[in-house]
Amino acid sequence: MTYFPNVSNIHYKGRQLKNELAFNYYNPEEVVAGKTMKEHLRFAVAWWHTFTEEGNDPFGVATKLRPWNRHQGLDAAKARVEAAFEFFEKLGNPFFCFHDVDIAPEGDTLRESNKNLDVIVAMIRDYMKTSNVKLLWNTANMFTNPRFVHGAASSCNADVFAYAAAQVKKGLEVGKELGAENYVFWGGREGYESLLNTDMKLEQDNIARFFHMAVDYAKEIGFDAQFLIEPKPKEPTKHQYDFDAATTIAFLKSYDLDSYFKLNLEANHATLAGHTFEHEIRVARTHGLLGSLDANQGDMLLGWDTDEFPTDLYSTTLTMYEVLKNGGLGRGGLNFDSKTRRSSFDETDLFYAHIAGMDSYALGLKVANRLIEDRVFDDFIENRYSSFKEGIGADIVAGKADFTSLESYIIDKKDITNQSGRLEMLKNTLNHYLLEEAGK
Amino acid sequence: MTYFPNVSNIHYKGRQLKNELAFNYYNPEEVVAGKTMKEHLRFAVAWWHTFTEEGNDPFGVATKLRPWNRHQGLDAAKARVEAAFEFFEKLGNPFFCFHDVDIAPEGDTLRESNKNLDVIVAMIRDYMKTSNVKLLWNTANMFTNPRFVHGAASSCNADVFAYAAAQVKKGLEVGKELGAENYVFWGGREGYESLLNTDMKLEQDNIARFFHMAVDYAKEIGFDAQFLIEPKPKEPTKHQYDFDAATTIAFLKSYDLDSYFKLNLEANHATLAGHTFEHEIRVARTHGLLGSLDANQGDMLLGWDTDEFPTDLYSTTLTMYEVLKNGGLGRGGLNFDSKTRRSSFDETDLFYAHIAGMDSYALGLKVANRLIEDRVFDDFIENRYSSFKEGIGADIVAGKADFTSLESYIIDKKDITNQSGRLEMLKNTLNHYLLEEAGK
Amino acid sequence: MTYFPNVSNIHYKGRQLKNELAFNYYNPEEVVAGKTMKEHLRFAVAWWHTFTEEGNDPFGVATKLRPWNRHQGLDAAKARVEAAFEFFEKLGNPFFCFHDVDIAPEGDTLRESNKNLDVIVAMIRDYMKTSNVKLLWNTANMFTNPRFVHGAASSCNADVFAYAAAQVKKGLEVGKELGAENYVFWGGREGYESLLNTDMKLEQDNIARFFHMAVDYAKEIGFDAQFLIEPKPKEPTKHQYDFDAATTIAFLKSYDLDSYFKLNLEANHATLAGHTFEHEIRVARTHGLLGSLDANQGDMLLGWDTDEFPTDLYSTTLTMYEVLKNGGLGRGGLNFDSKTRRSSFDETDLFYAHIAGMDSYALGLKVANRLIEDRVFDDFIENRYSSFKEGIGADIVAGKADFTSLESYIIDKKDITNQSGRLEMLKNTLNHYLLEEAGK
Amino acid sequence: MTYFPNVSNIHYKGRQLKNELAFNYYNPEEVVAGKTMKEHLRFAVAWWHTFTEEGNDPFGVATKLRPWNRHQGLDAAKARVEAAFEFFEKLGNPFFCFHDVDIAPEGDTLRESNKNLDVIVAMIRDYMKTSNVKLLWNTANMFTNPRFVHGAASSCNADVFAYAAAQVKKGLEVGKELGAENYVFWGGREGYESLLNTDMKLEQDNIARFFHMAVDYAKEIGFDAQFLIEPKPKEPTKHQYDFDAATTIAFLKSYDLDSYFKLNLEANHATLAGHTFEHEIRVARTHGLLGSLDANQGDMLLGWDTDEFPTDLYSTTLTMYEVLKNGGLGRGGLNFDSKTRRSSFDETDLFYAHIAGMDSYALGLKVANRLIEDRVFDDFIENRYSSFKEGIGADIVAGKADFTSLESYIIDKKDITNQSGRLEMLKNTLNHYLLEEAGK
Repeated sequence: MTYFPNVSNIHYKGRQLKNELAFNYYNPEEVVAGKTMKEHLRFAVAWWHTFTEEGNDPFGVATKLRPWNRHQGLDAAKARVEAAFEFFEKLGNPFFCFHDVDIAPEGDTLRESNKNLDVIVAMIRDYMKTSNVKLLWNTANMFTNPRFVHGAASSCNADVFAYAAAQVKKGLEVGKELGAENYVFWGGREGYESLLNTDMKLEQDNIARFFHMAVDYAKEIGFDAQFLIEPKPKEPTKHQYDFDAATTIAFLKSYDLDSYFKLNLEANHATLAGHTFEHEIRVARTHGLLGSLDANQGDMLLGWDTDEFPTDLYSTTLTMYEVLKNGGLGRGGLNFDSKTRRSSFDETDLFYAHIAGMDSYALGLKVANRLIEDRVFDDFIENRYSSFKEGIGADIVAGKADFTSLESYIIDKKDITNQSGRLEMLKNTLNHYLLEEAGK
Repeated sequence: MTYFPNVSNIHYKGRQLKNELAFNYYNPEEVVAGKTMKEHLRFAVAWWHTFTEEGNDPFGVATKLRPWNRHQGLDAAKARVEAAFEFFEKLGNPFFCFHDVDIAPEGDTLRESNKNLDVIVAMIRDYMKTSNVKLLWNTANMFTNPRFVHGAASSCNADVFAYAAAQVKKGLEVGKELGAENYVFWGGREGYESLLNTDMKLEQDNIARFFHMAVDYAKEIGFDAQFLIEPKPKEPTKHQYDFDAATTIAFLKSYDLDSYFKLNLEANHATLAGHTFEHEIRVARTHGLLGSLDANQGDMLLGWDTDEFPTDLYSTTLTMYEVLKNGGLGRGGLNFDSKTRRSSFDETDLFYAHIAGMDSYALGLKVANRLIEDRVFDDFIENRYSSFKEGIGADIVAGKADFTSLESYIIDKKDITNQSGRLEMLKNTLNHYLLEEAGK
Repeated sequence: MTYFPNVSNIHYKGRQLKNELAFNYYNPEEVVAGKTMKEHLRFAVAWWHTFTEEGNDPFGVATKLRPWNRHQGLDAAKARVEAAFEFFEKLGNPFFCFHDVDIAPEGDTLRESNKNLDVIVAMIRDYMKTSNVKLLWNTANMFTNPRFVHGAASSCNADVFAYAAAQVKKGLEVGKELGAENYVFWGGREGYESLLNTDMKLEQDNIARFFHMAVDYAKEIGFDAQFLIEPKPKEPTKHQYDFDAATTIAFLKSYDLDSYFKLNLEANHATLAGHTFEHEIRVARTHGLLGSLDANQGDMLLGWDTDEFPTDLYSTTLTMYEVLKNGGLGRGGLNFDSKTRRSSFDETDLFYAHIAGMDSYALGLKVANRLIEDRVFDDFIENRYSSFKEGIGADIVAGKADFTSLESYIIDKKDITNQSGRLEMLKNTLNHYLLEEAGK
Repeated sequence: MTYFPNVSNIHYKGRQLKNELAFNYYNPEEVVAGKTMKEHLRFAVAWWHTFTEEGNDPFGVATKLRPWNRHQGLDAAKARVEAAFEFFEKLGNPFFCFHDVDIAPEGDTLRESNKNLDVIVAMIRDYMKTSNVKLLWNTANMFTNPRFVHGAASSCNADVFAYAAAQVKKGLEVGKELGAENYVFWGGREGYESLLNTDMKLEQDNIARFFHMAVDYAKEIGFDAQFLIEPKPKEPTKHQYDFDAATTIAFLKSYDLDSYFKLNLEANHATLAGHTFEHEIRVARTHGLLGSLDANQGDMLLGWDTDEFPTDLYSTTLTMYEVLKNGGLGRGGLNFDSKTRRSSFDETDLFYAHIAGMDSYALGLKVANRLIEDRVFDDFIENRYSSFKEGIGADIVAGKADFTSLESYIIDKKDITNQSGRLEMLKNTLNHYLLEEAGK
């Protein structure tokens, strides 16, 4: 059975696309800054948004009646695997990601859920043998089931903590089985509705205990994936503990977990927290904690997680700028934690959407690379901070200055001259690079 | 005396600019869709942000110590005129805009203020004789002076109402004198801090009375400029009455003012109200009330009016799309109600900033024109709504259907088939057009 | 069968409740400002949130496994009626509200859906005979079913328009059958995801055609309920046409509908639009368009509709202040469009929540009444605007002034004296009234 | 000369105030939870908002023309000291706070500025001898002067770093001289406008260097005040490094500063960062880093720092709840970083506003104390988390469990039962306590 059309049959009005894969900018083997695009842009398809999600929202039911979901239970799960690998084959993405419940139905007990998982994991492993697609990361969904109503590792109910622990245990085993490069923790319900009924200290202590157990168990079974925490400020909870990159770093440092975890940052989560995506990435990389990225975008006028496919070229450019400056994402990648709009309910839309995302990041990579090659911002910044390379500035950086020496230096000085920050010039230059790269 | 460098000396790192004016996309005489760029893009320089404003913010004093402001009183005002016309000459903008207090200092009485105005207005009129620059609009500043602490036309103090009336009277005379194409009302303090001490009904009635008096007086003196109201949701007041386009339209209709006024819409005000700029323009034009535009942009993560120069090419493209669909802006224009960042304090930054804005709009115009020429969205939309061109849909539009006939038509119908909205495809197509236009 | 405990068994820690109904402030027969509390506070229970909704959110499935929902199809619908009237009986609310799909399951065709409705409507009518509870309003749900993916009256698909029309036709018939005092239109999907694929003008024209048909049909069948439109700015759509009160008024006026419709305002929708609830009510009442209220509250730090039960006494006080100033709500009422938190999943929580809401509004009513009786804000405001009662101010209000006369009056005046707005004093006075009323 | 009326002459409409100081709830010597109100509520008057600020906003000039500011230079500074101590005497606040530039004018060099400071500090010290008012904290204003356009310790200009260092050196000396209990760092411009021109790593390293120098110098001169950092997310900069409590904690831990600094948290800064005030306090106190509070409130519908006087009794109650749970504020206090509205421009408004704030906090203290005494939330929470006191929960907390033991415990368990979080009940209970306390 075939679920999807071919990418090469996807057309855009009035535009001659550059290659038969319908991509205009993404070219997996094209070399940019010494590596192929495929190596830079470790794109992953998200199982949940692409194969499981069907367009429900708080005011409406499913609009995307996927053919593979017309089956029941394990049969639907198996059909979904078939659909997934057909999609991967046609799209050419190198990676995928999933939560446990995306790939296999839950049973009445965890033992039964695990059995279901085993069936599907074996099937996926088989498919992976003849496919080039790899598992970027897997994770455990500990927020959908009603048992997690008060949280998972932060639940007020010890049984729920135990359940979550056992679920992650299985997740680590599955990750090892499928060769996952990373393992992700998104604490969807690790937060609170109200402080009136919450013991925040105990909840955070328990999360830390949970993470240490996870580290120990991964070591025990020899699963060497990179552990990632994914910050989000709110939704579904009123306040999620891993609010943003900095908050998560404070947590990791407070509980001696910063050598075991890096961050999986998401664009839409960044903006919900009041930050640009590039800010969150910069924070993570200055702490050496940039792990992986969830590539999507939000609507800046809406206050919830819209998980749109990334098409804003400013954002993809500045994201890839940070990634290149980081020396790449290492074992991380760019996971499309993105869903087609509820009104884009065709299977074809899944291609339009992924192509839009991949092209946007490919162009972003090329523009970012040229900005770096031409040292557009680097030269400006180097010059801007040059006063710290000599004289009193060099003393400050070298630790040779103190308040007394600095006072002596400055106390009788009449004029301090600053240079313009030239932001309008820099923004226009960014536009020039964006547009000229396209014209090449 | 010369205050500014030439535009042709403005350089951007590593980019070969296309013409000697340092613009890469703006070319005043280039024809797009049957008109020159200059005719489409009736750019105005805002006197207040460019010549008066000096970088104060709620936490800091002036950083932009403009040479022309080193004088006092009328002398500073005169120097500012010289600086302004030098700037216009070098930049090549066809229009400018001002508030009364931007161009001349206030005296102890309105009579004295008016005298000061007369001096400067005469000087501006002289300069205009030998310049190509025209007055897009003028307006009265009725928010800075402490007398307007509780509003102007909406003040609880009848003396303040009278003062504002007399001030606008003079404004209309000045506008007539200088051949202004429009006259703008921005009710900066026409709103409230709290309903606890506010008679909203009386305040709005008074504003309507004020507007009718303005209409009458303009007729009386034969000043035929287009009257414009500029919506803004808040800041400086907690709630400004002209919240957004729709609110202003409700007001105009409630007080029989909609045949006398159109809207002057601002990008940053739109986003503060929770709308995109193109939304506000669409609302205005579907009501036939699109008057003029304040071209700037806000920071989507900040909750106040940042009045940045417009550089977001998505926004400039979609703005020009609406403008072209409106058949242009008529007597309106694109006023840069934009200021350089406080940290961009050089005079040179004024060029960088205006060039960035003009280039961004020029490119937006070209992309928008191609989108329209190729009927990219038009064809999609025409097809999408085609069910209203025939059968039951045509009956609905023609007024031939009622609830009973529609019930008969649908009551036993089993399946209603919708088509995908294809938003991801359309967004990617927009990217293609943006990038390809640049490559031409 | 009994689904609920009695209200009198509901206890709060350490507090002696004042009456056997577990209410501390709500006392249906207590007279305030000449009417009983029951007459002032026409509380309605919302069928959807109280009997149908089960705690799903975008990241989680049902937590509130209601016993009456364990049945299937019409049996569940019948059980829900039983549960509802038991709840009404125990709580003592005078009204209820519903969407069609809340009370009866949809069939394969509208004819089948209507048949199901007929069964349940008959059952409800029977229950109402022996109950004191009345139908405040009913409405049609035209947003949940996938057919409404692109809107209902604003759909790009004429069949969907026809379906919606026929659905509202039935809704009006049901409303008449059950003696509804109002009929509500909330256009949950009447808006857009993006202007790129939207014909806003046609969509709004169609909505207007739809409303006129509704008015005509109601007249035809002699259903004299008050028609209400419920504004909301966004969610589920990116932009909903009935953004807020003012926008809806602009729409009503543009399409000559303002004599047929009033507004049903919701607290949480107000804050999502950037307004206080009292602002929206004030706007509606100054236009004579205040119809009814959806009593709930949002979380000011969250950007989506949380629909919390109202407990903020500032908001309930200022709401009742506006209502009293309006001379009451007429045929409207206070509908609890509010849901218990997903983590408050017990049936008992339904009582705690409604009691909290009813007590909060009862206290708000009493405080508001005292503020009015003591003319706390009235005297202050009367004095504040007194300059419009005499002299030049009286001339302005009487239409005797024009720009020329006002200029003569003010042009040589040196000092204009304003009075302090005293906002801090007024806010503290509000606190005093709130606290003292409680102490009585 | 006398600048202010007496508090006892301040009246509120229709309310009999309880004591001659015009306070209804604040009674300095009243004992609550074993300490006097004065000891709990270490109120400070903020010099800048009360004596220096005059009502400027981004769209308007001064409305509050204070008599003491009619002088020039040092004379105005001296008059301000007289006014301040008269105000303190009449209000009865135990503390005050200031920035260096609030109390003395800047000179052409730092040496001159310091000389001016010396004059005023000596004068203040004299006044303090015969007054009961103490210095809660002082700080250096490193954001108003143009030299700080790019930051202070984070400036790209080493001379600015030196200036800031010397300025803080003087600040520490002044603090010592006046017996300050704390020294505050608010990094008003320590952040960025854009990452395009920013070396975030160097800037943060430099801030850390600066803080270490400050610690060293305080030690050197024997100034043992508590050092405090005040987080704020944005404004005036687009992004301020000390975004919120958690971000600041991450910074302190990254640079080994967490044993030298605590946090000075502000209500309005909390809400601008997307948090409740009580959240920020809870975060600080779980880290043992709660230092002091800036008592004000923001407008939840506005996106900038409104610095209103605190009147929201929910917020004051929950704030004092956290403070009592923390065992008090130690050397910290409650500084009114609050200003009267621009439209409340009388000197009398300064009393109305401070009385509103002090009464609101006094009532909050009393309600919070009763909530704690009655263990309203404590009992609920203790019961809610009781599963961690025994069995598997106790093992988890004791570190005796691991993923394997937890899996064994849960893998075959069919049902996990959660208890309702009862949020609506708890919120209503909070209302009962608020209202009943008032009635006592």
